[in-house]
Amino acid sequence: MSGLRLKFMEVYSILKSELLNDPAFEFTDDSRQWVERMLDYNVPGGKLNRGLSVIDSYQLLKGGKELTEEEIFLTSALGWCIEWLQAYFLVLDDIMDNSVTRRGQPCWFRVPKVGLIAANDGILLRNHIPRILKKHFKGKSYYVDLLDLFNEVEFQTASGQMIDLITTIEGEKDLSKYSIPLHHRIVQYKTAYYSFYLPVACALVMAGENLDNHVDVKNVLIEMGTYFQVQDDYLDCFGHPDVIGTIGTDIEDFKCSWLVVKALEIATEEQKKMLFEHYGKGDEASVKKVKELYKALDLEGVFADYENASYQKLIKSIEAHPKEEVQAVLKSFLAKIYKRQK
Amino acid sequence: MSGLRLKFMEVYSILKSELLNDPAFEFTDDSRQWVERMLDYNVPGGKLNRGLSVIDSYQLLKGGKELTEEEIFLTSALGWCIEWLQAYFLVLDDIMDNSVTRRGQPCWFRVPKVGLIAANDGILLRNHIPRILKKHFKGKSYYVDLLDLFNEVEFQTASGQMIDLITTIEGEKDLSKYSIPLHHRIVQYKTAYYSFYLPVACALVMAGENLDNHVDVKNVLIEMGTYFQVQDDYLDCFGHPDVIGTIGTDIEDFKCSWLVVKALEIATEEQKKMLFEHYGKGDEASVKKVKELYKALDLEGVFADYENASYQKLIKSIEAHPKEEVQAVLKSFLAKIYKRQK
Repeated sequence: MSGLRLKFMEVYSILKSELLNDPAFEFTDDSRQWVERMLDYNVPGGKLNRGLSVIDSYQLLKGGKELTEEEIFLTSALGWCIEWLQAYFLVLDDIMDNSVTRRGQPCWFRVPKVGLIAANDGILLRNHIPRILKKHFKGKSYYVDLLDLFNEVEFQTASGQMIDLITTIEGEKDLSKYSIPLHHRIVQYKTAYYSFYLPVACALVMAGENLDNHVDVKNVLIEMGTYFQVQDDYLDCFGHPDVIGTIGTDIEDFKCSWLVVKALEIATEEQKKMLFEHYGKGDEASVKKVKELYKALDLEGVFADYENASYQKLIKSIEAHPKEEVQAVLKSFLAKIYKRQK
Repeated sequence: MSGLRLKFMEVYSILKSELLNDPAFEFTDDSRQWVERMLDYNVPGGKLNRGLSVIDSYQLLKGGKELTEEEIFLTSALGWCIEWLQAYFLVLDDIMDNSVTRRGQPCWFRVPKVGLIAANDGILLRNHIPRILKKHFKGKSYYVDLLDLFNEVEFQTASGQMIDLITTIEGEKDLSKYSIPLHHRIVQYKTAYYSFYLPVACALVMAGENLDNHVDVKNVLIEMGTYFQVQDDYLDCFGHPDVIGTIGTDIEDFKCSWLVVKALEIATEEQKKMLFEHYGKGDEASVKKVKELYKALDLEGVFADYENASYQKLIKSIEAHPKEEVQAVLKSFLAKIYKRQK
């Protein structure tokens, strides 16, 4: 584990311990143990990219100079708030999607004796964020900006989740609803705001910036987040299972994936008919037929073109930014995801 | 409908319309319709006591003088934030409790095509609160106090819900866990903070008060909320179904009711054994046996004594408060619930 990651994990332990002794609630041993187990199960087990990138971004904004202990602690705390937010979304999404595993272990609601208590645990995770913010940022000039930021991004994510859910209501699977604009809208709201914009916005706020002056940064990050999700959709079908660590099931699950909306856009009437017949079916033969169609439409080539065009466009937008430090932050994000294989 | 209630409903329509046109999210017709239907189904259908009491309390704090249009609008908006919070808790609680009806209609998650999308709708309801606060209070000196207040009270409510849920985990029904202190802790956190403290705290904040100076007011309201819940538990068994509008099922549902914890406290060993055997059973004979025991223990008399003692204690605490206007607010709350039959 790198030094930074180790430090980041130390901050997790501190935040957890503070939450388990929050004076706003009179814990019993039972409830304290429940929350501790719930946090350890759901919060720190991911790749932590979102959280760690707050620290990186802040350092780049500061021209790369070494951060003080306090700066490391505070950027880490904000990073953990994003990880807590992610854990909250995942715990609830898994209930709604009736998922089986998450990060290589059973979904929290499937753990014995947890069940639907998981829904309230998700709520608790969400509630921990303002507790962390109050404990460590109350009194800072930018405290209210942090509260507004987290509130707005959570609202956008929940709204994105809503359009995703209502376009795929059980028993109303209708491929004709799927389109590039719908895909873009879902991805933008459900993923890009909290995964790409939020970490950089946290760093900007902590660096004393007014977010209203950084709409261009937001737009670049939303576009990068969209590109990231398109990669995700692509890898779900064309990635190597050994490399991405899981076997994609977007086709079976009738997901509004970039691949299917792109296929719908360029397919002939006959090919479309085939897609309508086989997309979202659980049997192997149907999945195979859809994959063959993707190959016949050369979606690999279409994706490669999209990837190049996105990259060029993003670089151009980034280099148009007047501040070198901001360019560095955005380029660092892009470098992490460009042509990723997992 | 009274004039105030009519006015209050008008504010609901305005807030709803603003939320359905929130620039932070690009609505489609489908998603706008979904949210509107979800709001109308879940938010305004209750008694609205919590929401309306913000307006009343604020007026009393202002010495009873007539409120300006702006004051009526803003206190109503805060009142609606509490109703939104309540709707959020109820939508999610009903999922977790697998409930059937709520306010005389099927629970939201039981409505066709809604299902577990209701969990995300609950989240959306919660997210609407900071949107309302930002729209109407951003720029006010007390804006950040409102955000902190709603965050703290939501955290306490979710924590109360947690202790309620983990003491009654499916398959681990164990009456020996139930006690007066546990009952008190659940009621305090799960109900009293948001139902009693929050409306008055909103009014105090809007009147320019610092909540840190009003810990005594908080304590009185938490105690009043506890008394209110004890009444609720009492009426569930001893209230008249025609008056309270529903048939209580706390005994069948193994609820940690004030009646059962009181019974456990004063019962003989033999009576306790009986309670352990029959409490939480669905059959009529068991319910009847528990009710007979409650009668034998004279829980009606015990409750009457509790009610008198509570009232005396509350009046004494209220009259110890230095400010007449604050006394008026607290007495008005108490008058609404003292010796209520429903």
